[in-house]
Amino acid sequence: MPIPERKLIAGIKRMAGSTRSKGVLQGIGDDCARLYIPNGHEMLVTTDFSLEGVHFRQKWHPAESVGHRCLTRGLSDIAAMGGMPIAAFLSLALPKDIPQSWVNGFMRGFQKLARRYGVILAGGDTAQSPSGVLADVTVVGSVPRGTSVMRSGAWPGDILYVTGELGASAATLQNLMRGGAKKTSVLRHKEHFYPEPRIKIGQYLREKKIAHSMIDVSDGLSVDVAHLCEESGVGAMILADRVPMKRALMMSQNKKPTLHAALHGGEDYELLFTARENARVPNRIAGVAITPIGIITKSKNISLTDSMLRTIEPLEAKGWEHFNG
Amino acid sequence: MPIPERKLIAGIKRMAGSTRSKGVLQGIGDDCARLYIPNGHEMLVTTDFSLEGVHFRQKWHPAESVGHRCLTRGLSDIAAMGGMPIAAFLSLALPKDIPQSWVNGFMRGFQKLARRYGVILAGGDTAQSPSGVLADVTVVGSVPRGTSVMRSGAWPGDILYVTGELGASAATLQNLMRGGAKKTSVLRHKEHFYPEPRIKIGQYLREKKIAHSMIDVSDGLSVDVAHLCEESGVGAMILADRVPMKRALMMSQNKKPTLHAALHGGEDYELLFTARENARVPNRIAGVAITPIGIITKSKNISLTDSMLRTIEPLEAKGWEHFNG
Repeated sequence: MPIPERKLIAGIKRMAGSTRSKGVLQGIGDDCARLYIPNGHEMLVTTDFSLEGVHFRQKWHPAESVGHRCLTRGLSDIAAMGGMPIAAFLSLALPKDIPQSWVNGFMRGFQKLARRYGVILAGGDTAQSPSGVLADVTVVGSVPRGTSVMRSGAWPGDILYVTGELGASAATLQNLMRGGAKKTSVLRHKEHFYPEPRIKIGQYLREKKIAHSMIDVSDGLSVDVAHLCEESGVGAMILADRVPMKRALMMSQNKKPTLHAALHGGEDYELLFTARENARVPNRIAGVAITPIGIITKSKNISLTDSMLRTIEPLEAKGWEHFNG
Repeated sequence: MPIPERKLIAGIKRMAGSTRSKGVLQGIGDDCARLYIPNGHEMLVTTDFSLEGVHFRQKWHPAESVGHRCLTRGLSDIAAMGGMPIAAFLSLALPKDIPQSWVNGFMRGFQKLARRYGVILAGGDTAQSPSGVLADVTVVGSVPRGTSVMRSGAWPGDILYVTGELGASAATLQNLMRGGAKKTSVLRHKEHFYPEPRIKIGQYLREKKIAHSMIDVSDGLSVDVAHLCEESGVGAMILADRVPMKRALMMSQNKKPTLHAALHGGEDYELLFTARENARVPNRIAGVAITPIGIITKSKNISLTDSMLRTIEPLEAKGWEHFNG
């Protein structure tokens, strides 16, 4: 009997720990996982690739970070709907010569994040990869029916808010690209190596009916604000000096202004949302700063403005996308 | 604005056609898809890789066949639970130089099969592939709560049945490996290029409460019967001359016995199920033959027997698995 793939699956199953929860009737081990969705809830599903050489590099990213990051992508999408994550599905193709220690590290990073949010690894697939580590993660969640916060709900006059700070992940990536892998402390660059999905904030904004529309900032603020505006049929003015940036960290390393990284950097996994002008939006939610950065307009233009709302320049969507090489 | 990935997504979204159905409240276009699961139903989720060079080859498989096959894998898993498929999610990484015509063909094959079963392409991801076409397909379905047919339900004394005929797909693969791509007619080898998931049969067996346990034959009968027996804590005797094979096709090409392909071939996408001895199991369901091939035993051995149930040899699980190179 060919052992290796079964052994790999057995190992992953063992590392998955508990494969049942209130939401997971049955995890790994049958043709399909069986999930329980409460009556009156709708299901949320999101799927994201994490490919070696495209989304991460083994020489830059420790295995734990790769496992963490590939799950963050899906959890952040659930957060952006105001949802509660239930289960994750991991399709993992590995090169023949990958050390078991790498797989163990990957699973540790994945599972540590999963447990923090009560997410069960309930299934997936394995294969031998023709080239590099290939991961595809599906995350399933739920939300009371009809309460999902969508991209399409922004109204003219809404205030645009963002959680946390932008640009730190992209700044770290720039460091790495300049060859600073050895000098780039994983601990000092948590925003890049261990980004935190904003699950609690998304749920709060949905439950309190604060957010009209929401998206997560994964491709870069400029791209994601364009997605939100496009789906809502609106435009936006973004006040350049209100965009929250981790200045200290970035200035000390780049010796140049950081606004570009904050506007176009990507992989922030913060939430961008709109609320009506007089909504009671806390300054902090779950310990994270909430910053108003602009206003939604009826005109479909998206522009960067000064503090007097005078246009500095159109905000071109040029965040990180694939297929642009 | 970097156009190509957005253009690709727009193309896929367009080819996806309708992105809503009774079960899909919202498909492509937000952070997550939103699905409706009827009250009192449980959700089924399955995920399968289809990687170029591992699961298919461009020189052997037309693009339409690749699109069809990668969706069949998930639909067949839903069938094996007795479920109704609702939505599919396609993560597709493409090499930079892939022709648009290939992508169009892939999507045609995928969508033609999806429409036949009322499945909506509700989301996914795209990326540039470092090497070859990489697809990962998640299929979501549902079933009335507690009625899923699982691998673990086989009882000693149950009769073991299989749908259709086994081995044809593997025989085609052997042809292709011997360099017969040009001589291998796609139409004459539908079992390999366009395998049909047994959705209707699975649902019938669940609704009529005929099947105690079920699994789809994707890795090969010998491997899949071992999975079923392991999960049920039982064994099986398989009558060698009862295993249904497409003899005509296979004999003419291989000039040798076909039992090996039927037992260990894989990619049949037929259903293997057990029912109690006196259950009323039709000879055909949805036009497909249903064949009794063995009996479930309390002893955990799995053996191949003659028609008098005398053991010929232990049935070793040696179907197609990855990581065995």
